[in-house]
Amino acid sequence: MDFDQIFHSQLDALKAEGNYRSFAELERKRGAFPRAENHKDGTVSEITVWCSNDYLGMGQHAAVVQAMIDCVQTSGTGSGGTRNISGNNHKHLLLEAELADLHGKAAALLFTSGYVSNWAALSTLGSRIPNAVILSDAGNHASMIEGIRHSRADKVIWKHNDWRDLDRKLAAVGDRPKIVAFESVYSMDGDIAPIKEIVQVAKAHGALTYIDEVHAVGMYGPRGGGVSEREGLADQIDLIEGTLGKAFGVVGGYITGSAALCDFIRSFASGFIFTTALPPAVAAAATASIQHLKTSNVERLRQQEQVAKLRARLDRLGIPHLANESHIIPVMIGDPIKCRMISDILMRDWGIYVQPINYPTVAKGTERLRITPSPCHSDADIDHLANALSALWHRCAISHAVA
Amino acid sequence: MDFDQIFHSQLDALKAEGNYRSFAELERKRGAFPRAENHKDGTVSEITVWCSNDYLGMGQHAAVVQAMIDCVQTSGTGSGGTRNISGNNHKHLLLEAELADLHGKAAALLFTSGYVSNWAALSTLGSRIPNAVILSDAGNHASMIEGIRHSRADKVIWKHNDWRDLDRKLAAVGDRPKIVAFESVYSMDGDIAPIKEIVQVAKAHGALTYIDEVHAVGMYGPRGGGVSEREGLADQIDLIEGTLGKAFGVVGGYITGSAALCDFIRSFASGFIFTTALPPAVAAAATASIQHLKTSNVERLRQQEQVAKLRARLDRLGIPHLANESHIIPVMIGDPIKCRMISDILMRDWGIYVQPINYPTVAKGTERLRITPSPCHSDADIDHLANALSALWHRCAISHAVA
Repeated sequence: MDFDQIFHSQLDALKAEGNYRSFAELERKRGAFPRAENHKDGTVSEITVWCSNDYLGMGQHAAVVQAMIDCVQTSGTGSGGTRNISGNNHKHLLLEAELADLHGKAAALLFTSGYVSNWAALSTLGSRIPNAVILSDAGNHASMIEGIRHSRADKVIWKHNDWRDLDRKLAAVGDRPKIVAFESVYSMDGDIAPIKEIVQVAKAHGALTYIDEVHAVGMYGPRGGGVSEREGLADQIDLIEGTLGKAFGVVGGYITGSAALCDFIRSFASGFIFTTALPPAVAAAATASIQHLKTSNVERLRQQEQVAKLRARLDRLGIPHLANESHIIPVMIGDPIKCRMISDILMRDWGIYVQPINYPTVAKGTERLRITPSPCHSDADIDHLANALSALWHRCAISHAVA
Repeated sequence: MDFDQIFHSQLDALKAEGNYRSFAELERKRGAFPRAENHKDGTVSEITVWCSNDYLGMGQHAAVVQAMIDCVQTSGTGSGGTRNISGNNHKHLLLEAELADLHGKAAALLFTSGYVSNWAALSTLGSRIPNAVILSDAGNHASMIEGIRHSRADKVIWKHNDWRDLDRKLAAVGDRPKIVAFESVYSMDGDIAPIKEIVQVAKAHGALTYIDEVHAVGMYGPRGGGVSEREGLADQIDLIEGTLGKAFGVVGGYITGSAALCDFIRSFASGFIFTTALPPAVAAAATASIQHLKTSNVERLRQQEQVAKLRARLDRLGIPHLANESHIIPVMIGDPIKCRMISDILMRDWGIYVQPINYPTVAKGTERLRITPSPCHSDADIDHLANALSALWHRCAISHAVA
């Protein structure tokens, strides 16, 4: 049996359809975000990153950096075990208390990543609540889909952001334990869910509500508690899931909810139990980041300004981008090979890095450049990006939006 | 629907059978391992950790600590994205090159944890190799079991470490792609697989061989390449999986293998694609740790000495522990409530921390104290532990081994 031949043939198919992925090789420059060094073919050049999920640049914030370094100095580089077997650190508990407070919940539970938090929480809820049905928004993230799939619970998919469809499907399920799983800000289109209506419908049917706020925590709400905080709806949602790896600038994931809910997941989730805990220094850095963004609005306001400026520039240039209410600007290309080509030219000729987003991250035919302005991007950076895109749109004869 | 009631009732059942888990709340003291601060009921006391998986104390090694701090200083606290979308860092690639070299493979692929590396690799291999069958050792870790389950490939379980049973079961499978998945050192019994025979049998049937070396990397083999390096068998194993969170003292997981194999997992594994990359500082620390242990035998030899000393002391005291060839000393208790009680007394009266290992980490009836001596434990520490266990064995009238 020639396994490498099997691998090669599937990789060749990926290449043929333009969906083979090449990664840029970066070194971010602390203190100079969004600038980074780009390693390519043995040379290093300075570029500007326009597609980071360190949305507020907190990964270079002095307090966050110092908290991480201080904790490495006092406790070392790792946790040394699972949460159960010697890896549970005081810093993990301080972080969980901070997260519970952020979302106004009784408890929180930390995971090694946002992916694992969704996968572990949904697979545990779906498999251990007898006869459960999970009603999943059609646009949910891969980590939620895999968690639901792993639970082997019955799954019902409702139309993206369509609470009326959810209502009908909840009614059709009948008298069984129901879990409604959705996101607040959807990563690739940047659209925001009608949380109020979804929660009302879910509650009317007695369902447990599960929201993924990974693209919202830190950025929305007066304390960075996400869209659910901004809308005053956090107390109506049973489980709020988030990440420490995007606006908080570090790494890791979490859930918050009732004490019983968090203890349940803590006690039964394989993906929580059987894995080494995050380094205490990671927890310390995340705690510092959350604490800062609970009281500081500077980063949020500046990000919103830069997002608005770039959108206005794209509109004036007739460069088509998806309208949405979030900080994510998807510039639509619609072809994987063209998308990769534009990205390559931006990097090579303009020192601008925007990763092409192709299948399976987005559906085939909806390939895009996903641009994420941060408070670290200057007006001059925006000018530079707008000029580059304008030149490219002319050169490549990419379709313009109707002016 | 009262979901909290469902959670409470399952938690109550766990408590009734003695398997509810309480975590010790520690702060490890860098420079003073195995010493740590224990937080309990508002007070803090110094204790000695005897159950860490930071097997060699590398989490406090000066070069590892400095590498992490230096990288936080230059690049910040996080990676800022998935490997595909702006999160791929030069430090990740240096680490992957180091790992490939460690195991003598063409390539390596980094994951956020060892759990995720097993789960993602096995689920991808099982689901994407047409008509695959996975032959799994009965003692395999939860992360492997969940990965195989998630793949929905056919699974055949062979008797633990029994290559003759594997041979029979491989023959029965017939002409299909076969994957043989096993570990080198099994975490809870500390026994070591007959790798040579397993690999011979697997190859005779044309199977792909997959070994988990998480409890062996750093500690076995002249460069810390694991048991497969020590036995000169690494080149006969197709995929070697390992962790950065145990002997290497940081966090994260990886696989190594052929370039096509790693590219295949990189390109298709949901758990690799859709998750934020590890902080560059974590990769830098892990690289420093691996590099040190490739050339230094001091830590390995000292660990082996301290393990041998403690075993000899336990034998003289008639305290029953599982015989094995590894660094793991399982002191068998056989009852979850007694196991927890002994652990509590050790912590309270002796300042000794050994977490009770209960179901689901081990089978019911095989509850144990799992002791992991490190090079950081002094002879006086061993005396202290031996005295404590001896006193407890007399006080609690726990059965002694036949002298």
